[in-house]
Amino acid sequence: MRFMREAIREAKKGLAEGGIPIGAVLVKDGKIIGRGHNRRGQKSSAILHAEMDCLENAGRLTARDTRRCAMYSTLSPCDMCAGAILLYKIPLVVIGENKTFKGPERYLCRRTELVNLDLKECKDLMAEFIRKRPDLWNEDIGV
Amino acid sequence: MRFMREAIREAKKGLAEGGIPIGAVLVKDGKIIGRGHNRRGQKSSAILHAEMDCLENAGRLTARDTRRCAMYSTLSPCDMCAGAILLYKIPLVVIGENKTFKGPERYLCRRTELVNLDLKECKDLMAEFIRKRPDLWNEDIGV
Repeated sequence: MRFMREAIREAKKGLAEGGIPIGAVLVKDGKIIGRGHNRRGQKSSAILHAEMDCLENAGRLTARDTRRCAMYSTLSPCDMCAGAILLYKIPLVVIGENKTFKGPERYLCRRTELVNLDLKECKDLMAEFIRKRPDLWNEDIGV
Repeated sequence: MRFMREAIREAKKGLAEGGIPIGAVLVKDGKIIGRGHNRRGQKSSAILHAEMDCLENAGRLTARDTRRCAMYSTLSPCDMCAGAILLYKIPLVVIGENKTFKGPERYLCRRTELVNLDLKECKDLMAEFIRKRPDLWNEDIGV
């Protein structure tokens, strides 16, 4: 739970900035090498979902690195983030929940391992945010 | 070919900067609303593939916009870029070629239309670059 705690910390950082509370950390050999949170609102970005922001902050890694990584995200990855995980051959994805949103998990699972921790804290964070800002949330998931 | 010409122009801009020559433009209602090129080297970025850079430069669009768009890219989209296209429900993808690299086209085609122009110019640009910088190219496609 240590790494998911850090992903949740990122989600809350995003919330404090007025953003969508989704966070992620990238872990290699037991160490966090990248962290990020959704910054659609903060950076007017169409691509900075939490997992993408996290990968970007980790810097230029090769697949030799990412093949030894785990991606922790507070929410099930969308099509784009799932694609990034596949591109970099990240073998393990740990998510906080998939009730708020469920990405292409079956497709992802053909090439990576997915573990859903189903955490109330992650679901509550999102439920409260979506109640307040359904517009930003819908924009984020392409609705 | 007008829009693919612009995507190729973006690819050449990237090459002139010392980057991987892949370019993309996003077209809505017959107008280019975003353009970009691969900036892995230039920005030390793990996520700025041409299509991603193009989406980012188009700014915060909703799916109401992107559902009316076409993505032109000089190369077949990788897992990440294909995922971004699916997230934003872009209904048409026109590519310059898929000989140098072929992304998950069959998966993409389940939800979007893909047209391959199979252009020698696009293939030649990449072949020459990969001969000179195989390291950067391999990093870019997660090898």
